[in-house]
Amino acid sequence: MNMEQRVSLITLGVEDMERSAAFYEAMGWTRVESQDGVIAFDLIGQTLGLYPRSSLEEELGLEPGALKGRAATSLGYNVRDKSQVASTLSQVEQAGGTVLKPAQDVFWGGHHGYFADPDGHIWEVAFNPFSPLRADGAFRWNGYS
Amino acid sequence: MNMEQRVSLITLGVEDMERSAAFYEAMGWTRVESQDGVIAFDLIGQTLGLYPRSSLEEELGLEPGALKGRAATSLGYNVRDKSQVASTLSQVEQAGGTVLKPAQDVFWGGHHGYFADPDGHIWEVAFNPFSPLRADGAFRWNGYS
Repeated sequence: MNMEQRVSLITLGVEDMERSAAFYEAMGWTRVESQDGVIAFDLIGQTLGLYPRSSLEEELGLEPGALKGRAATSLGYNVRDKSQVASTLSQVEQAGGTVLKPAQDVFWGGHHGYFADPDGHIWEVAFNPFSPLRADGAFRWNGYS
Repeated sequence: MNMEQRVSLITLGVEDMERSAAFYEAMGWTRVESQDGVIAFDLIGQTLGLYPRSSLEEELGLEPGALKGRAATSLGYNVRDKSQVASTLSQVEQAGGTVLKPAQDVFWGGHHGYFADPDGHIWEVAFNPFSPLRADGAFRWNGYS
């Protein structure tokens, strides 16, 4: 099963969550309700999330500071069922990418893994049972009902 | 006028265009027709573009190699008329961001500028007369007719 052509989540790793949120809010953006330590802004069929750089490093199993100065970014690709996390990562390896973190359950109740494309751009592949996708694959933070 | 909550373009700076394109094509993605040295994949209401890292550095007025190892990424925000490039950048300064490149005409016939958010995440603000936005702001590489 091929990867569909969409990005569910653009995650920006930041030093100071409230400083960054204040910037985007000053640009006129409104955050949606969120737990899990993410500050989320719903866009058109996807979400932009602010997340502490240190948490992103931890989630990726990297040394503290590993992403410092790299303007750490991760692109999220959410799948329709749990088994697609592993099958997507398996396709990544065949395609010449690098699996950074194999498919596994996550503390918040989802299932995910990470990979890097040939230039090191980081992608998360995730199954999130609490945020179902719209039929066309569109994503928003608290899901489509 | 506030920035609308949307990302028109996710640009990944890459070392070897065909190597990167081959990766995404092996994942099942199909590129759209493109000139201008970009390899473009239309997503839901936005486009992901592969672009040489060196060209991205040049466009940003950076030294060659400045973005090496940073998994260079730029988020594009396309506006509805030319004057909104400058007004968005002006709002950026008020919001505590940094203008990297002031509003100016671009060789391909558009008008653009760049800014960085408080963590250095790079955004391009662009007016592209050849790729009109959909009424809701959605973007695709060769425009909505």
